[in-house]
Amino acid sequence: MKIAVLPGDGIGPEIIAEAVKVLEVLNLGLEMETAPVGGAGYEAAGHPLPPATLKLAQEADAILFGAVGDWKYDTLDRPLRPEQAILGLRKALGLFANFRPAICYKELTHASSLKPELVAGLDILIIRELTGDIYFGAPRGRRVAPDGHFPGSEEAFDTMRYSRPEIERIAHVAFQAAQKRDKRVTSVDKSNVLETFQLWKDVVTEVAKQYPDVALDHMYVDNAAMQLVKEPKRFDVVVTGNMFGDILSDEASMLTGSIGMLPSASLNDKKQGLYEPSHGSAPDIAGKGIANPLATILSAAMMLRFSLGMEEAALKIEAAVQKVLADGLRTADIYSEGTTKVSTSQMGDAVVKAL
Amino acid sequence: MKIAVLPGDGIGPEIIAEAVKVLEVLNLGLEMETAPVGGAGYEAAGHPLPPATLKLAQEADAILFGAVGDWKYDTLDRPLRPEQAILGLRKALGLFANFRPAICYKELTHASSLKPELVAGLDILIIRELTGDIYFGAPRGRRVAPDGHFPGSEEAFDTMRYSRPEIERIAHVAFQAAQKRDKRVTSVDKSNVLETFQLWKDVVTEVAKQYPDVALDHMYVDNAAMQLVKEPKRFDVVVTGNMFGDILSDEASMLTGSIGMLPSASLNDKKQGLYEPSHGSAPDIAGKGIANPLATILSAAMMLRFSLGMEEAALKIEAAVQKVLADGLRTADIYSEGTTKVSTSQMGDAVVKAL
Ligand SMILES: CC(C)[C@H](C(=O)O)[C@@H](O)C(=O)O
Ligand SMILES: CC(C)[C@H](C(=O)O)[C@@H](O)C(=O)O
Repeated sequence: MKIAVLPGDGIGPEIIAEAVKVLEVLNLGLEMETAPVGGAGYEAAGHPLPPATLKLAQEADAILFGAVGDWKYDTLDRPLRPEQAILGLRKALGLFANFRPAICYKELTHASSLKPELVAGLDILIIRELTGDIYFGAPRGRRVAPDGHFPGSEEAFDTMRYSRPEIERIAHVAFQAAQKRDKRVTSVDKSNVLETFQLWKDVVTEVAKQYPDVALDHMYVDNAAMQLVKEPKRFDVVVTGNMFGDILSDEASMLTGSIGMLPSASLNDKKQGLYEPSHGSAPDIAGKGIANPLATILSAAMMLRFSLGMEEAALKIEAAVQKVLADGLRTADIYSEGTTKVSTSQMGDAVVKAL
Repeated sequence: MKIAVLPGDGIGPEIIAEAVKVLEVLNLGLEMETAPVGGAGYEAAGHPLPPATLKLAQEADAILFGAVGDWKYDTLDRPLRPEQAILGLRKALGLFANFRPAICYKELTHASSLKPELVAGLDILIIRELTGDIYFGAPRGRRVAPDGHFPGSEEAFDTMRYSRPEIERIAHVAFQAAQKRDKRVTSVDKSNVLETFQLWKDVVTEVAKQYPDVALDHMYVDNAAMQLVKEPKRFDVVVTGNMFGDILSDEASMLTGSIGMLPSASLNDKKQGLYEPSHGSAPDIAGKGIANPLATILSAAMMLRFSLGMEEAALKIEAAVQKVLADGLRTADIYSEGTTKVSTSQMGDAVVKAL
């Protein structure tokens, strides 16, 4: 099995190093090859997704991804900015199904902005469609406004779109995920305003008929943003489009109070996947050895489960992470009085030891 | 001065009755005329925004609006559904500037999902552009996909667009609002992905030069959804497009824990405005006399201030609402032990008495 290891920018290299450490100690016979991506790709080869990196990713069974982005690339033209690497990988590999768990760990409940009773035991799985919607819809660009409020003035535009099969395949992913959980799916749309999401709602409703054991409800995106704050535990699986999923998955992560703990997976129909922490590259703390590697280590566990069929090894890693938490080890982002503050590499070492 | 009073559906008529009561006791010489809208418009005249209602709204100096929507209209064709009335009014009157305050009242801090220290004293003003973006962008519809992942299959699409002058005018509204507050504007975009919001960011940055006393920062919408949960008090004025504003303004309202207290205003360039509570029509509690009329009463105060130039009367209403809260009067939605539970009309009467 071949893994493309793409550390990226900011804290990316530090957290990836710990995840690699954990994978190596498990002796799974993985062939891991590292390549630059994001700002590091731009420095090394003049492009955030250098051709050699893309080729490696395409040929690998899975990609272990750190994080990309740094203020210093803000002035580059958009096609050269670090985050284009991630959009490019999603598109090139067809990674349409994004899994974003929002889990509140028992030991970390107090770290949430929300009152403990609202988040204790929280376990939401957000399934975000990742290769369609307004992210990739054409046409897009700038032009002279042909009509509208100010015809003749400069305007910019983008196209939101979803086709029936694109919605069907992500709906199947959501219903099948729900079957392994609490058997409830909330489909988030804006069908009261958007044609795209009226089709979304219609198709999800049709696909639901194939899953009579799963309960489906529909919610407008504005209401979903409210219900996540008001009563997050009402959700089991949430399925939505690329744009709404971007917003809601981040909102949900932050509700847990410990975004440094949350992994993610982005899969295509061949079970190839990109695995990355839900948090960003945090350039402000890069190189200080204080970043939390657990989201990346848990992403490696998801990789073993989803792309490599190594469920047992995945469970081992997850149990080891539970153990270090139970032992009171904390990186700075999740530290609280009475626990033991550790560095990035100490945390990685502790997971290795727990294995 | 002429006011179009549009009660609408669900709890709309009950809460509007209390706001009208409050306006009448102030003896401001307002001419108030009532007309059906939403589901009530459909029942009365076969359309959610009957021509006579629209005409009344267009000729009025301001619109006092209750709420629209009820499950029983869910099966109607989209153009006949209640919420089309509100989209129709925004479009016909050019109500491009939506003011959505998210305020946490001292007496109600405990009602928030968030820990009290995170929301005590919260006072955010979200300015949402309301007549552009993907809400009204053409072309839109269903078709056979000309390209994309599944060419030839059925697809639905919408167009997101903003022109330079549309962005300029809402940016001016935001900067001018900030000048009367803490002099900070956060512009929310998704310029890393969308052409529309790259133009948005560019134009807001240019307009900012005319307001050297106001500090501007930019935030991606996914990050804004997170920061609202993590540290809501970091925001003063937030300005964003129609779609992102829909989501973020609802998220922010819910953070306060007392959406039953939050008014809103939607203005055009002639200071004509539509004033409505931030909450919905709540058909489940309609007719029970338990709805909170304060958001609607405070919307009437905003109406006096923004559209009728009656600042003094607006301040009087706001002070009266503060007084009934301080006196411990609460409708069911904001009730807590040790306070006095009152009905919708008792709350309206108490505000009248405090005046
Ligand atoms: C970096 C950006 C393009 C990306 C997105 O919007 O999808 C990020 O926010 C994410 O959620 O992975
Ligand atoms: C009812 C709906 C069309 C409307 C919107 O999306 O703008 C509502 O959610 C609002 O925010 O006023």
